[in-house]
Amino acid sequence: MRITVLAGGVGAARFLRGLKAAAPDDEITVIGNTGDDITLYGLRVCPDLDTVMYTLGGGINPDQGWGRAAETFSVREELAAYGATPDWFTLGDRDFATHILRSQLLADGQPLSAITERLCRRWRPGVRLLPMSDDPIETHVVLEDHLNERTVVHFQEWWVRHQAKTPAAQIIAVGADSASPAPGVLDAIATADVVLFPPSNPVVSIGTILSVPGIRDAVAAKTVVGVSPIIGGAPVRGMADACLTAIGVPTTAAAVAAHYGPDLLNGWLVDDQDKSSAEDLAPLGIEVRAMPLLMRDLPATGAMARAALDLAQELA
Amino acid sequence: MRITVLAGGVGAARFLRGLKAAAPDDEITVIGNTGDDITLYGLRVCPDLDTVMYTLGGGINPDQGWGRAAETFSVREELAAYGATPDWFTLGDRDFATHILRSQLLADGQPLSAITERLCRRWRPGVRLLPMSDDPIETHVVLEDHLNERTVVHFQEWWVRHQAKTPAAQIIAVGADSASPAPGVLDAIATADVVLFPPSNPVVSIGTILSVPGIRDAVAAKTVVGVSPIIGGAPVRGMADACLTAIGVPTTAAAVAAHYGPDLLNGWLVDDQDKSSAEDLAPLGIEVRAMPLLMRDLPATGAMARAALDLAQELA
Repeated sequence: MRITVLAGGVGAARFLRGLKAAAPDDEITVIGNTGDDITLYGLRVCPDLDTVMYTLGGGINPDQGWGRAAETFSVREELAAYGATPDWFTLGDRDFATHILRSQLLADGQPLSAITERLCRRWRPGVRLLPMSDDPIETHVVLEDHLNERTVVHFQEWWVRHQAKTPAAQIIAVGADSASPAPGVLDAIATADVVLFPPSNPVVSIGTILSVPGIRDAVAAKTVVGVSPIIGGAPVRGMADACLTAIGVPTTAAAVAAHYGPDLLNGWLVDDQDKSSAEDLAPLGIEVRAMPLLMRDLPATGAMARAALDLAQELA
Repeated sequence: MRITVLAGGVGAARFLRGLKAAAPDDEITVIGNTGDDITLYGLRVCPDLDTVMYTLGGGINPDQGWGRAAETFSVREELAAYGATPDWFTLGDRDFATHILRSQLLADGQPLSAITERLCRRWRPGVRLLPMSDDPIETHVVLEDHLNERTVVHFQEWWVRHQAKTPAAQIIAVGADSASPAPGVLDAIATADVVLFPPSNPVVSIGTILSVPGIRDAVAAKTVVGVSPIIGGAPVRGMADACLTAIGVPTTAAAVAAHYGPDLLNGWLVDDQDKSSAEDLAPLGIEVRAMPLLMRDLPATGAMARAALDLAQELA
């Protein structure tokens, strides 16, 4: 069973650990979001790709879910001593090496997909990891203050610096319009038996991947099963509610599925406490299954991945 | 007394500590060699400027004379784990931050002189530190093997990787011909009461600075006092003999002074064991003073600097 996953960062990476327990590595292709990418101190940082790579490769800080284990912060301390900006984004010394090498290879003219493959030769995540695009796409957020003054900031500035506390008036994937899917992306979708949406942010992770011209149509042609990132009216982690609000979608498991819509989504895994969403989604033709969705350990996460694959087989 | 110093790395930095003990900071301008600069992992590294900056700013590793104190090496370990090259140049985590910031500012279009000033706002070396040029100049070394096959390598590759053990057939300051002195350099020389050559490498440090068009003529017009980097037929530190051999100059205090020549050099401080060089140099019109030249501590180095300034006053 060939499986293609559209992946954000921490939530997707944890789900993928479960998926690797439920299916052979060589059947899994991961298409990673690059809309969160940011250039910091002249270095290109790809938080979602790296979170997947470090998590599956055994290098992740397991407590925070992102960044490297056994990390130190000398480079950051020194940059702060120089008064370098921004001072609100934390990169560890081990993590810096990844960004230094990636930036060097980008400057040499290599595409991000080839660089990601090169980095994965070290990390051996097992699955095939592709960036959604080799073209730079950056999610920017339009903020509106109480005087209706608008400012546009990089997604990371809103998310990390402001903790998404300022409401977003608009979320834009800058560069998406003219971007192309990275080599292998459309093929991995077209040849998949199922496309999975892990419990990633529906707006700035999966939504951004779907905004790359060609990807949405390719996905819509397949059996698609998603895992709700919302449990009981709140995001399991992160601040997905702030993103959903920005696009006018209520923070419920049912509303997120309806937002994807039946053209895209065929099956939807929700938590037991959201099982009533089946009634809302049945008329749309989205098949719902309920189970415990908290990824508290590998067995629980493996069970979620198996349930998603089972539902896909039913729907196929 | 306005003092301008042409400086290489470790030897110059130690001499400058003595000079700061012998003269007020605001009378001292340092023109740093940038021929040793190298781009590693896409980052611009300026070893000589940084050695002077870290030494005078209190951040140097005092035992090795270069690099940062209390240094760690996580970034380097990670780059090695990725198989990044080169693997023969050691950069510490704290040091990496300097190169990251400098590279970011260079990519933003700032000249090296402005960046050096910015970095020095943190380090407060006291003296004014100028790069010899804002134009990239890189010292390359032509190596000739026993089959007369020639290869050209960056100076650092010869110096650090090969420990200068392969004889150099030629040493070239690539880019010097079309380079200009950095803003302030010619003015600092023209307005100086004395130009000092610290015990730096006469070929790849002071020689490279002098190769920037306009600098040699400006220096030749001034009272110039040098400190011999050779004691008793051997370099005090480093492998200056390998560089001198490449340009056909014997490794003696007298030969180095004669290489600079009386057009450039007016006074020459040698070690007591080289006092006989006075006889060789008197006919050339180069005035020699002998004293202990080992920079073993700050008082000894301060005495050397004072002797150089005294000789300059005598000659003026």
